[in-house]
Amino acid sequence: MKQLFTNAHILTMAEDATPLLHASMVVEDGVIQWIGTSPPDIKEFDQITDLQGRLVLPGWINTHGHGAMALLRGYGDDLPLQTWLEEKMWPMEARFGSDQVFWGTSLAVLEMIRGGTTCFADMYDHMDQVAQVVKESGIRASLCRGVIGLGSLEEQETKRQEAVRFVQDWNGQADGRITTMIAPHSSYTCPPPYIEKLVEDSVRLDVPIHIHLSETRREVQQNVEDYGVRPVEHLKQLGVFQRPALVAHAVHVNEEEIDILKQHDVKISHNPGSNLKLGSGIAPVPQMLKKGLRPSLGTDGAASNNNLDLLEEIQLAALIHKGFTEDPEVVPATTALKMGTVYGAEALFIDHETGTLEKGKKADFITLDISGAHMQPRHNLVSLLVYSASRDDVQDVFVDGVALMRNRECLTMDEERIRFEAEKAIQALIP
Amino acid sequence: MKQLFTNAHILTMAEDATPLLHASMVVEDGVIQWIGTSPPDIKEFDQITDLQGRLVLPGWINTHGHGAMALLRGYGDDLPLQTWLEEKMWPMEARFGSDQVFWGTSLAVLEMIRGGTTCFADMYDHMDQVAQVVKESGIRASLCRGVIGLGSLEEQETKRQEAVRFVQDWNGQADGRITTMIAPHSSYTCPPPYIEKLVEDSVRLDVPIHIHLSETRREVQQNVEDYGVRPVEHLKQLGVFQRPALVAHAVHVNEEEIDILKQHDVKISHNPGSNLKLGSGIAPVPQMLKKGLRPSLGTDGAASNNNLDLLEEIQLAALIHKGFTEDPEVVPATTALKMGTVYGAEALFIDHETGTLEKGKKADFITLDISGAHMQPRHNLVSLLVYSASRDDVQDVFVDGVALMRNRECLTMDEERIRFEAEKAIQALIP
Repeated sequence: MKQLFTNAHILTMAEDATPLLHASMVVEDGVIQWIGTSPPDIKEFDQITDLQGRLVLPGWINTHGHGAMALLRGYGDDLPLQTWLEEKMWPMEARFGSDQVFWGTSLAVLEMIRGGTTCFADMYDHMDQVAQVVKESGIRASLCRGVIGLGSLEEQETKRQEAVRFVQDWNGQADGRITTMIAPHSSYTCPPPYIEKLVEDSVRLDVPIHIHLSETRREVQQNVEDYGVRPVEHLKQLGVFQRPALVAHAVHVNEEEIDILKQHDVKISHNPGSNLKLGSGIAPVPQMLKKGLRPSLGTDGAASNNNLDLLEEIQLAALIHKGFTEDPEVVPATTALKMGTVYGAEALFIDHETGTLEKGKKADFITLDISGAHMQPRHNLVSLLVYSASRDDVQDVFVDGVALMRNRECLTMDEERIRFEAEKAIQALIP
Repeated sequence: MKQLFTNAHILTMAEDATPLLHASMVVEDGVIQWIGTSPPDIKEFDQITDLQGRLVLPGWINTHGHGAMALLRGYGDDLPLQTWLEEKMWPMEARFGSDQVFWGTSLAVLEMIRGGTTCFADMYDHMDQVAQVVKESGIRASLCRGVIGLGSLEEQETKRQEAVRFVQDWNGQADGRITTMIAPHSSYTCPPPYIEKLVEDSVRLDVPIHIHLSETRREVQQNVEDYGVRPVEHLKQLGVFQRPALVAHAVHVNEEEIDILKQHDVKISHNPGSNLKLGSGIAPVPQMLKKGLRPSLGTDGAASNNNLDLLEEIQLAALIHKGFTEDPEVVPATTALKMGTVYGAEALFIDHETGTLEKGKKADFITLDISGAHMQPRHNLVSLLVYSASRDDVQDVFVDGVALMRNRECLTMDEERIRFEAEKAIQALIP
């Protein structure tokens, strides 16, 4: 099918591109063929969509999260991290079954589509359910069975086999919308030999590694006590950074560690909302950028955020580092926008097919209404988006050229049923 | 007129109140007469409004801003403070006339109403225009002519007379919706004798003082160099704190200064978004709360934010201090919500009539749709509001029991005309 999208202001997010005003985009079989301001001959097209002067740009890419935790949104807040984990999250998550993961992830994906996310990373359990939600909803995703190696060797082996089997079953499925990773949870929950085995799996399966890294100060100290080195050096020694790797958080990393991450081209998922809310700290994003790293953005699970609004993460990334460093020039608006789009595609190793709007890439894009009072006057479109817009300005969401939301109506998910089933799934677990 | 509002979940924000589920509210001539869960006899009422299961709470109170600067939203971003002020803001503001202030403020008030703000403070020039917008729009406001004393004694005197005349003309107008203050801009823009004169004016007129305080580190150093003391001690010596006083920012205040502010019951407007964006720093809000101060929230002007979304300020206040102090227990969700409502009313010295929903107070309230995916499940309404909601969840806005917005339709302002005129007013100034 050959589609024409017209009457849009387009931010392609391609390197050094300027906004294209009153522009059009041609998409053939889900792939972008042309973008520009000279109007093509409309007789050539099977479908013509008037985007009504909206702002068009690549969809948000959320590079770290645990979708099913949407069921635990607000179940425990404003608590010390260990209390929150040990008394609130873990006891409930231990009782999660397929139903909770299916409906929790459905709720999460619904929220993400409504906020303009076209691709997300998910690390959880019961991943077949997550993959099924991705397949049916039409969104793009990079999925991994997160494994914790605190149990017996037999339990470790069972989980590892699940992670491997999930990759074998799902990598490249849903018309290529699903990619997969191997995910040792973290250095504090996985003994070194277990991480090494998972690295071998990632080599054999030819998929990247996704792992939590240095989220809290305490975790770093623990690593030094247990292994004599800080987590970055530890993971380097275990071979993790010999693989394409995505680390989540990286809050407590020093200059030397940032250098190591850069040398190995390690991808970073910066999760400002979650790091703030849990009191974990503020990641040294300005230093990362200065050294040439290209950090992406993630929401983390809804229980520690408490939403899955990637635009809010873009806005937090643009604001908090300026305040924290007392320097208004760090993380400029354009950089924050790249973190939420093109750097996200790089972090999930799919930048050859998404993250910018360019010829040959998949037509993963969103449109925003820019007529609201908060979007006037229009001195600078990027500034409006980063410092003033909100998720409800997102009107349309397309993945592979297919509409998942049009004029704020979701087309691939049954909103009412998801709300009902999600509520039922969590109520079944509350004592 | 006797009104009944039914079918709502109500957060009254009264001290120690718990959420009232499936509740109603009775309003007579704009004043709350009753709130509760037992349904009153519907035959008694002139008007009955079904709030469709929405969440009801006092409207947001924005305690510091410069509405007309909405015209400069995004006109200059990500610049060092002095460059931003001297090359971008001041040259444009110097050219602002009545038209710019009227339409800029109209755009700001429209945005604030759409986001659920029922009362705002405004410090600017051409204040008759601002008062006119407040009168026509139906919103509540505390207004002041901000005076800068850097010119000749004659210029100083002219401005002071304008400020005095504005208070005399407008205090208590618009059915009492307008209150006024006397506003020396700051200690770095007003010489001490000028501030003392303005303090005398505030005594004679019996209105509070509003002033910027210690927004930047540089400003504090300058004060020490010029006057030998830090700004808090300086303003104390000039008698500012003998008056009911509201200070904006208070970013760079130490423990001793917080003690002085507390001793004099000085009100604080915390502006997290603006302070972050301009790289001013992060105000010591946890310490202020610990010492018993009750800081309110402000957006500042749209040029340094870049929106007028008080819910975003509530969310920033709840998040950034946790991350900055690495303590998830500081500024809990309920406190952040109080900062945006009841503490705001206290900061503007109108807590006897607004800020909470209680018998005898004005019916200034908003409703939020809680059916969105990001508002499920409903473990905790306050948590959902503070950590997950967004401004577009606001459906209805009432001030004095009068609807300013119903189901997201503004009833007192002509949105299309405001967008058009605001654009025209700023374009007239762009070279």
